[in-house]
Amino acid sequence: MLHTRACSENAFMIVEALKWIGGTDGCLELVDQRQLPAEFVTLQCRDVQSLFDAIKTLAVRGAPAIGVAGAYGLVLALQKLGPNDSVEEALESLTEARTYLASSRPTAVNLFWALDRACKRANAQHGTTLQSLRETVLAEANAIYLEDIEMCRRIGQHGQQFIKEGAGILTHCNAGALATAGQGTALSVMFEAHKKGKRFKVYADETRPLLQGARLTAWELQQAGIDVTVICDNMAAYLMKQGKINAVITGADRIAANGDTANKIGTYGLSILAREHGVPFYIAAPSSTFDLNIKTGAEIPIEQRAAEEVIRFAGTQTAPSGVTVYNPAFDVTEARDIAAIITEQGVIENPNTERIARRLPPNPV
Amino acid sequence: MLHTRACSENAFMIVEALKWIGGTDGCLELVDQRQLPAEFVTLQCRDVQSLFDAIKTLAVRGAPAIGVAGAYGLVLALQKLGPNDSVEEALESLTEARTYLASSRPTAVNLFWALDRACKRANAQHGTTLQSLRETVLAEANAIYLEDIEMCRRIGQHGQQFIKEGAGILTHCNAGALATAGQGTALSVMFEAHKKGKRFKVYADETRPLLQGARLTAWELQQAGIDVTVICDNMAAYLMKQGKINAVITGADRIAANGDTANKIGTYGLSILAREHGVPFYIAAPSSTFDLNIKTGAEIPIEQRAAEEVIRFAGTQTAPSGVTVYNPAFDVTEARDIAAIITEQGVIENPNTERIARRLPPNPV
Repeated sequence: MLHTRACSENAFMIVEALKWIGGTDGCLELVDQRQLPAEFVTLQCRDVQSLFDAIKTLAVRGAPAIGVAGAYGLVLALQKLGPNDSVEEALESLTEARTYLASSRPTAVNLFWALDRACKRANAQHGTTLQSLRETVLAEANAIYLEDIEMCRRIGQHGQQFIKEGAGILTHCNAGALATAGQGTALSVMFEAHKKGKRFKVYADETRPLLQGARLTAWELQQAGIDVTVICDNMAAYLMKQGKINAVITGADRIAANGDTANKIGTYGLSILAREHGVPFYIAAPSSTFDLNIKTGAEIPIEQRAAEEVIRFAGTQTAPSGVTVYNPAFDVTEARDIAAIITEQGVIENPNTERIARRLPPNPV
Repeated sequence: MLHTRACSENAFMIVEALKWIGGTDGCLELVDQRQLPAEFVTLQCRDVQSLFDAIKTLAVRGAPAIGVAGAYGLVLALQKLGPNDSVEEALESLTEARTYLASSRPTAVNLFWALDRACKRANAQHGTTLQSLRETVLAEANAIYLEDIEMCRRIGQHGQQFIKEGAGILTHCNAGALATAGQGTALSVMFEAHKKGKRFKVYADETRPLLQGARLTAWELQQAGIDVTVICDNMAAYLMKQGKINAVITGADRIAANGDTANKIGTYGLSILAREHGVPFYIAAPSSTFDLNIKTGAEIPIEQRAAEEVIRFAGTQTAPSGVTVYNPAFDVTEARDIAAIITEQGVIENPNTERIARRLPPNPV
């Protein structure tokens, strides 16, 4: 059973978003984030299809978390093979599962990164037994999981310097423990600042249409004892005007080689409002979020989601029947408006192609 | 019974938001806007208290509409007086009702303007009979109502030049027929452009927390046969980036002498995003929305509304229990970011104190 775990160095609790239960014949347990904060319910994914559905419907979400979940999905794919199937057939199953899982969501790159990494490792084991292949893929998924936990902690430690005593911090969507295997990315920065005893105030954009900020970020911060205020997305500019925001910190779903960053829809607008009001804008994300194969954010595909997410809430219709809806899930913030990208490998200030290349190896996989 | 009325010069229907039924012993009928678009329900206000509640809970809303409603509220106040009450007592009742109704919502100035106008007219009738006083106040309320209808039409006619063939227009909240006695302010501009046969596309910000854009604006435009797409508030910047928005047109709740304009929360942010993307930003509002007694927007009081509006929807909780919420209903857009204010008296381009004073008499009341 997933639970909140005590933050090792401090008294507050941080939720576990997902965890593999058992060995190569085990399953992936997830917090069903669609039910939060009203209910804390877990899901057990025992095959690739149910994991695909969980990712697609946002039961599990957040770029790093769906990367970890995807890697475990490859372990699930190998469970379907019988004792008479060959290693070659197993590798084909892996390729198929990788393609299928990669089609669940198009924007975040961590999913592709994790799937590729686990598949590469499996292919390197060519010629061994099926059981050995299963163990290899599980070991790689576990490695990705554990690295994610460590990566989150490091992002927080590198980033906490940007939260000053008494500051007002704005965040958008959820880049917390629920978005990762560990303690989050943007929220990890806040957790680490909180551990250091800094007092600060977080404003959480509710983040329409699916309210990840109100439902998930506010819940995580509240559990950690951090002062949090929920606002509607359209209130951020007015808060900045009043001088209540000293920094904006968000996560990321994909970062191009030049630092352009795809994140939850609304982030781009916030970056412009932050510049207008002289507020520094930070991205907190692991190096697996970088896609160095693309030069700029213009190449990042933007997922379009269903109209229903916008015009129906809790069974109630919020717009006239038959109305047209535009529902992009992400937008791209320009590198020039990002004060720094906080990664587990350190902080990249005023990110551009050169500074990013210097900090990160050309092929992080 | 209120209904949609045929737009005189064209085939499409425009809703009536409110209407006085009967003579001095009549009542004010309102469309209950809290129920739209799911249900078209009307309310009959037969006393000052029920009208106050209707304004406070946004059954009737929109700066011009609550001005008209407030004036009729004074007619309701006079109905409570018996045959033995004096004209002096009646005038005291009016003053009391005016103060009470004015306390329902603090930001929009049209309410105070209409209450003051009807009270002034009543006081000028000092010395007549009670019934004559009632008739005077009703006549003044009717005059405000009829002027509002004409004012809406003129705003549309003055403003339609700003909608070019094939344009994409963004609007925020609802400044339509539902916000006025007539065919609206910002939406009147669209209705008049539509009448001229122009084809254009409107993006309606859903407008959190109460979704007036998704519920009301989309419904009105759909009824009129205008191409409308609902977006979440946080998507506007991304639309502008893609070049899909050629103009932003909104209504206003109060305009200071220098042109600074209070409107629904989120408008200020849009004005900055519009400037960033080279998109002209227009305000459409009657001259009764100007408060020439205040120099700048800094003096406009901003209504704070209940947390429940943000964190509960259709009975479903959308944020953790006990979380802090910030819920300002309005913000102030700076005059320098407004390309023009479209009034019934004409267009004030690049508004500032001098240009506004030249166009509008110093005391519009």
